Amino acid sequence: MSAPEIEQLIHLLAKLPAFGPRSARRAVLFLLNKKESHFAPLITAMQSVRDKIVACPICGNMDTSVPCAICSDSNRNQGQICVVRDVADLWALERAGVFKGVYHVLGGVLSALDGIGPEELRIQELLDKVASGGAEEIILALPATVEGQTTAHYLADRLDGYPVKLSALSRGVPVGGELDYLDDGTLQMAFKSRRGL
Amino acid sequence: MSAPEIEQLIHLLAKLPAFGPRSARRAVLFLLNKKESHFAPLITAMQSVRDKIVACPICGNMDTSVPCAICSDSNRNQGQICVVRDVADLWALERAGVFKGVYHVLGGVLSALDGIGPEELRIQELLDKVASGGAEEIILALPATVEGQTTAHYLADRLDGYPVKLSALSRGVPVGGELDYLDDGTLQMAFKSRRGL
Repeated sequence: MSAPEIEQLIHLLAKLPAFGPRSARRAVLFLLNKKESHFAPLITAMQSVRDKIVACPICGNMDTSVPCAICSDSNRNQGQICVVRDVADLWALERAGVFKGVYHVLGGVLSALDGIGPEELRIQELLDKVASGGAEEIILALPATVEGQTTAHYLADRLDGYPVKLSALSRGVPVGGELDYLDDGTLQMAFKSRRGL
Repeated sequence: MSAPEIEQLIHLLAKLPAFGPRSARRAVLFLLNKKESHFAPLITAMQSVRDKIVACPICGNMDTSVPCAICSDSNRNQGQICVVRDVADLWALERAGVFKGVYHVLGGVLSALDGIGPEELRIQELLDKVASGGAEEIILALPATVEGQTTAHYLADRLDGYPVKLSALSRGVPVGGELDYLDDGTLQMAFKSRRGL
């Protein structure tokens, strides 16, 4: 076998999502062949992220500042709160650049199979935000999966009675979508939610 | 967008083989969620590999010692030299544990398309080893691709005339291989190289 230092690095890399033992080995060899141009900068970048990035106590986003750049941006509508499953989904919406409010990261969705109940998610924090006033609209941007929709229903129930507007992302044919390739559920939803022209 | 520290790390991770921007983002979030249990050990392991691992000047393997553990192992037959494309292939043969000689890593295979000629590979080093005596057998364990076989033919030509036995890995049906699923080339090769029982 190769040196224990290499085995240890392969072992740790292989646990990353989208990585396995084989791709971890290839990555280690890639880095060893580019020690100065890639390996050294990667280690520096990792240290920097590890030392400087913290979870925002308000929304749950990952950033260098507390509160994060989004929560402390006075140009954004702090009364419009978009509820997302995780930071990856928050980043996806930010990349799309369509939303100028703030976020609330749940940290997951309800899942009986995975043993994730309301206590495991940042749901109480969301209710506290709404109860303390200041929230005008809650936009549920949760995955269109069974778990995502269960979570959305649960949140709608819990938010019932608060003076806040509740909305969710629309469903339908995605941009560039060929009807022939779409699943039946999406087609049914797109028909039921058809718009007048 | 997220913090520049995170963007920089995603940018560097995305260049690794088997990684792209999306999986790099997921890896960064995974690490941020496991700062102490995974992120810190990963950085330490990377530093250790970067500082301690060097290419063996004799065979080209990556190891902590110079020469590497394989080249300095007196239990291995130093006269049997297995020629491989890269360190990944060397490790694959070591995992299989069938070979008790030493290796010679070429650093690639000849490829007109990629502009890789004999000068780019460690071919002269191999010829020097053979010319200096001590090599009894050269085993070509190169990929069964057009480039791999071109390289094997080229090496056989260059080694012609030296008092050394030349061999190559056998071709045929892989263990567990269903004939129905094998490509025509492999089936033809397996037929041509059929063995008497």
